[in-house]
Amino acid sequence: MSSSTLLDELIRALQVQPGVGPASASRIAYYLLDRKRKEGLGLAKALTDAMDKISYCPKCRNYTDNEGEECKLCSSAQRATQRTICVVEHPNDIEAIENSSSFKGSYFVLHGHISPLDGIGPEAIGLDLLKGRIEKEHIQEVILALGQTVEGDVTASYIAAMAKKMSVKVTRIATGVPLGGSLNTVDGNTLAMSFNYRHDV
Amino acid sequence: MSSSTLLDELIRALQVQPGVGPASASRIAYYLLDRKRKEGLGLAKALTDAMDKISYCPKCRNYTDNEGEECKLCSSAQRATQRTICVVEHPNDIEAIENSSSFKGSYFVLHGHISPLDGIGPEAIGLDLLKGRIEKEHIQEVILALGQTVEGDVTASYIAAMAKKMSVKVTRIATGVPLGGSLNTVDGNTLAMSFNYRHDV
Repeated sequence: MSSSTLLDELIRALQVQPGVGPASASRIAYYLLDRKRKEGLGLAKALTDAMDKISYCPKCRNYTDNEGEECKLCSSAQRATQRTICVVEHPNDIEAIENSSSFKGSYFVLHGHISPLDGIGPEAIGLDLLKGRIEKEHIQEVILALGQTVEGDVTASYIAAMAKKMSVKVTRIATGVPLGGSLNTVDGNTLAMSFNYRHDV
Repeated sequence: MSSSTLLDELIRALQVQPGVGPASASRIAYYLLDRKRKEGLGLAKALTDAMDKISYCPKCRNYTDNEGEECKLCSSAQRATQRTICVVEHPNDIEAIENSSSFKGSYFVLHGHISPLDGIGPEAIGLDLLKGRIEKEHIQEVILALGQTVEGDVTASYIAAMAKKMSVKVTRIATGVPLGGSLNTVDGNTLAMSFNYRHDV
């Protein structure tokens, strides 16, 4: 309990952020009050704008600023000509892929993965919308860039079955030894996968 | 660069917080957007209220919600009867002292320490105001609860000289071995101080 109710409320509110506990929240609150009030108000404005205005792109379900309008990536004519959709679990996966410049087609964001135990079925991750897009945009390949987890595997199998029924090619990004990694720093399962998916040289 | 300008701005703004770098900021932004939009707006409101409304108590310079009015601690009649002022460097020092229930008089917050190299002189830390209070409130003891640093020592000497001229008793909180600490976990300088300030048993 400090001398100011507003300060106590700020310290409590700051703890909504993952990784910020009571001690960090107190440090942040005093730091902003002592030295960065203008920047603190800037952060408040950025938070309000983001929470209020960021919505989903109706085509790829990525985050976008303009509600109802297609996002920057979806409205690119060049990307549409590729007839390839890359399916990811989360918007920040798109950031990672874009930073690697490894893909130039369109995206689709699941915002999660199929997880029957948590009551998350195919509809919750927007697979109806994905099916509609595959038909309408005459997609030729669906690339699954999903996490290498049990839920990622289940989701991949489900989408693969759906796409194969529609006679569309489905691929999944490779599992293996990372660049710069030596074999003895990689776990056994990853190494086993890299043997399974070995390729001609 | 994400697909949303507002999201990029939020990630940048979050980094004003000490201990929050680009990776944590991105994690926090996506977490709030994905799952805690209401709490995110609550944090924005708490920030705006705190940055706009928290001001200094005109008597002790601690943070307070009501501009121009004395804070809760200063307006306590019981505390005023003690005629003792505890001088601290920062508002959160008061929190620590109040939590320990070791002091029941009034406080004075310097918001820093004398540091000639940084251009911080006696006026910048409000020593004129402190002098006025010692006279007006007929203070009998000034307790210096300052950090055990070079700047803390300089500030302590300055305030001690000022109070002694006014024939007011000045004390400084003890340096020594913490409770529960064994002698070999404490640094040599602290141990030497604890010998200097040994007391009768």
